[in-house]
Amino acid sequence: MDERRTLTAHVLAITESLIRAGVRHVVVSPGSRSTPLAYAFAKSKGILMHIQTDERSAGFYALGLAKGSGGPVAMLCTSGTAASNYMPALTEAKYARIPLIAITADRPHELREVGAPQAIDQVGMYGRTVKYSVDFPLPEERPESAEFITRHVRRAVSIATDAPAGPVQLNVPFREPLLIDFEMEAAEPAFRHRFAGQIGPDPEMIDWFEGALRSAHKGMIVAGELPPGFDRGAFWRFAESLGWPVLADPLSGLRSEVPASARSLCISSYDAVLKHTGFAEKMEPDTVIRFGPQPVSKPLALFLKSCRPKVYAVVDDSPSFRDPYHLATHHLQCAPESLLGVRTDSSGPEEYARLWEEADADAAEETAAFAKNGNDEGAMAAVLFEEMSSGSDLFASSSMPIRDADTFFLKTEKDIGIFANRGANGIDGVVSTALGLQAARNRPAWLLIGDLAMLHDQNGLIATRFSDADLTIVVMNNDGGGIFSYLPQGSEPRYFEELFGTPTGLRFDHLAAMYGFQYDGVRDAAEFRDAVRKEKETPVRIIEAFSDRSLNLAEHRRLWGRISERLDARWKN
Amino acid sequence: MDERRTLTAHVLAITESLIRAGVRHVVVSPGSRSTPLAYAFAKSKGILMHIQTDERSAGFYALGLAKGSGGPVAMLCTSGTAASNYMPALTEAKYARIPLIAITADRPHELREVGAPQAIDQVGMYGRTVKYSVDFPLPEERPESAEFITRHVRRAVSIATDAPAGPVQLNVPFREPLLIDFEMEAAEPAFRHRFAGQIGPDPEMIDWFEGALRSAHKGMIVAGELPPGFDRGAFWRFAESLGWPVLADPLSGLRSEVPASARSLCISSYDAVLKHTGFAEKMEPDTVIRFGPQPVSKPLALFLKSCRPKVYAVVDDSPSFRDPYHLATHHLQCAPESLLGVRTDSSGPEEYARLWEEADADAAEETAAFAKNGNDEGAMAAVLFEEMSSGSDLFASSSMPIRDADTFFLKTEKDIGIFANRGANGIDGVVSTALGLQAARNRPAWLLIGDLAMLHDQNGLIATRFSDADLTIVVMNNDGGGIFSYLPQGSEPRYFEELFGTPTGLRFDHLAAMYGFQYDGVRDAAEFRDAVRKEKETPVRIIEAFSDRSLNLAEHRRLWGRISERLDARWKN
Repeated sequence: MDERRTLTAHVLAITESLIRAGVRHVVVSPGSRSTPLAYAFAKSKGILMHIQTDERSAGFYALGLAKGSGGPVAMLCTSGTAASNYMPALTEAKYARIPLIAITADRPHELREVGAPQAIDQVGMYGRTVKYSVDFPLPEERPESAEFITRHVRRAVSIATDAPAGPVQLNVPFREPLLIDFEMEAAEPAFRHRFAGQIGPDPEMIDWFEGALRSAHKGMIVAGELPPGFDRGAFWRFAESLGWPVLADPLSGLRSEVPASARSLCISSYDAVLKHTGFAEKMEPDTVIRFGPQPVSKPLALFLKSCRPKVYAVVDDSPSFRDPYHLATHHLQCAPESLLGVRTDSSGPEEYARLWEEADADAAEETAAFAKNGNDEGAMAAVLFEEMSSGSDLFASSSMPIRDADTFFLKTEKDIGIFANRGANGIDGVVSTALGLQAARNRPAWLLIGDLAMLHDQNGLIATRFSDADLTIVVMNNDGGGIFSYLPQGSEPRYFEELFGTPTGLRFDHLAAMYGFQYDGVRDAAEFRDAVRKEKETPVRIIEAFSDRSLNLAEHRRLWGRISERLDARWKN
Repeated sequence: MDERRTLTAHVLAITESLIRAGVRHVVVSPGSRSTPLAYAFAKSKGILMHIQTDERSAGFYALGLAKGSGGPVAMLCTSGTAASNYMPALTEAKYARIPLIAITADRPHELREVGAPQAIDQVGMYGRTVKYSVDFPLPEERPESAEFITRHVRRAVSIATDAPAGPVQLNVPFREPLLIDFEMEAAEPAFRHRFAGQIGPDPEMIDWFEGALRSAHKGMIVAGELPPGFDRGAFWRFAESLGWPVLADPLSGLRSEVPASARSLCISSYDAVLKHTGFAEKMEPDTVIRFGPQPVSKPLALFLKSCRPKVYAVVDDSPSFRDPYHLATHHLQCAPESLLGVRTDSSGPEEYARLWEEADADAAEETAAFAKNGNDEGAMAAVLFEEMSSGSDLFASSSMPIRDADTFFLKTEKDIGIFANRGANGIDGVVSTALGLQAARNRPAWLLIGDLAMLHDQNGLIATRFSDADLTIVVMNNDGGGIFSYLPQGSEPRYFEELFGTPTGLRFDHLAAMYGFQYDGVRDAAEFRDAVRKEKETPVRIIEAFSDRSLNLAEHRRLWGRISERLDARWKN
């Protein structure tokens, strides 16, 4: 075989092995050294190629694709700092447990660490951020090399998708020339298929679990973010059989399409009602079963921390189960769904569940009333959730948007997916993740985001120059870091605006014009509702809501005060 | 001491030790966990604080400050993916040998790897990209802790600035509450001062060096990027004493303020003339002394690779000397300036030097004539260099701009600094590096950049909302990846636009409007010259030159053809 055919066989072995391992999307960033693989992806029919010129945004776009599709997603970049730009998305993927396959093209060994251009030390460069990293040999015409390549690609994808899922790196060096033979096809690999098992409970675990459920008097289920494809029907049947209240994080997916039979058990206002200490004290559970990570809500965390339930069982299929407040008394290491078939009697949960249901209904009423008359970011978020139609998705940025989703997106029969980057809760890469998610789910999506996060990943929009999208971006522009007003730093006037407020004075009408996006700037909830109802005319549109940080803070506090008063009426000793 | 005073003493020990170690700038990105250090920097008089909300851009802004000031520069971010965003700038800093001190605020130990928000595995997270990394203890009131902190900050800065300079990480965990006592002052540290020595030549090295210079018949000096503050006067005296031609990379600083006495020795058109094989074959040197890294020019590299000089001595103060083409026969490990006092007779360099001088003059004339009549990017770059006034700086982006600087920025008496990110040659972070450089050098600067690089770091502009700047950005908008047309991929039509051209169709007038920057869009060299001559009215202005990728390629080739013909006349056979 000549050099070009050897190179072509090499890259086809990589791309075809990825496809056989279930990789359906690849995000490619332009570059020279990655040329052979880019060609191989471009000519392949089994994988959808997406283009993004900024590798940081490309990483997050891949993350969104993986979240939306539920499968492993590859990304390809050239050598040098291109690869360094994947670091933020890989970090989020590690903690969000998303199987990303970072393919970094590299210079050959003779060009490493000798001052050659675009050559950096890429072997293992992501350290403990990735679960696995392999440095491939240069293309060579040897059977053991071909076997190594096809098998290690499969191995890497297996490791990425295995619990806890996470990112891996394939470092692939190439020597010039970089052009491939476009007519060649991939060879048939000897390795055919991986049957991936699932960790299920063993009899000891089930015994204990049944016992814990049976002996609970005030039992509660807490549900954090759940994986794509989680069987919500089975979950609700399990919860109904127990009759326990389910405190459902917005990212659990359990606040949407709530079955009528389970409606009373689904609690979505706990963040607000647990701010009421009288209520919180009365509602201390003795047993908590948690699925998924710890929810977003800080009041819920403080509540659980203060009451320290006798039994706090975390169902998590990874030895690295998430327990930031050191509350867990038991870890049930198995796939969450594998426990949902357990049926047992629970002693007298009715009264406890009823009290939760009443408080939740009170808070929901107050929230709805508040949303109707308010003009701050919270009220606008409430309007958005009200107006969103069934069959659409919401991506909530970190900081305030996800908290507003927690407060204002209450249980509904509508089919609305709620997503966020809660692995490391960064404000980076949010636009890209939303776009990738939308591309994979292929239904209309909304992004709720603050001005600083929008600026941070405005480059995410570059991807829309190369592909279709259906996204409405709602920017809450409070000119700076809104969340800091809610923190102790907010009470310290010295250096506040300089270090935390950081008002940029920037607005997004010009950015919309740059990309040719439909744009509406609004200043109150009524204008906002009109804008949301407008027909969407461009693949991406921007609605910019100008808001005021101090008003937002005051209004949020006012709502919590009203809910508190309402609960007082019921709960005053 | 109460908790708040303990925390305050801790962070003041860090900031004051940085200042005593010579750190004069810090780039702060807003965040919560980093609050105590941000306050300490804000209240300190010994260090200038810069704000950038995007940590990736903040890293490159710090890189620019360090390049411009010649000293170590700190940057501070909060915990989580914020820290991951430093990776690209740290990578460039490693290979460009720039002392960056990355300070990553962290969550305390009990919140690590348990699913807590914004908590990632930050200990040693940059791996081999940094020279040193230390994880600090939580603040505690113990003398050994205070000693450790002050000494390790100093140690980290020493390691960062020691040859080869490079980035380091301080990981600093904090527990809530995060507010400090603003009235406290830093304690006087026991460790007072570091006297940093310099690696000089030993007698054996000098002996060899003198011998090599003496026995050369066709000796040549090659100068790559030289460190800030490099003694160019001493360098020219050394070169003049030898009478050897100096092939000066644009980043060497040796093309500017060329003394009249050395003018004939300074060769700046070698990239063009070495494309002429007849000339190249005749001019093979027997001895090459290189200062700084390998220059940008590919023809120069190919020339040296093909003739493989008998003696190729690289003067580099690091054991990791740069030698991408494996040409070095000798490594002289010492500070470059320490060899410039050597004086010796060199045998008959006059004829060889004269031939270089003539060819350089021929090429310069052709280039000037071409620039006068051309309308492509190269001609416009030439106009820019002609119009730039003495006492200003140019930052050239990677890909085509630095190559155009190489071709069109020829030796001059003007004082113009030329800079680029040539550590890893990424197109990321360019706007930020230029802004940081300008802030440190405090004189007008120009940035020459392509549209993809401009998009990649448009977030660099956010820094201008928080500080002054004096930068004119010249965007060569050829709608995509211009450099690929010059590579073999350019001759392969399949997938070219999709994978390499990647035209975004974006232009920068709206971006200028978003930031309130003066903007001019131009389509030819005459319009471009008018725009360059216009009075600057805003701290940053943008001149966007719309160009055509195929015209650029054709015009560059036409110029090289003309230079070749001119040399033919002299050099046939």
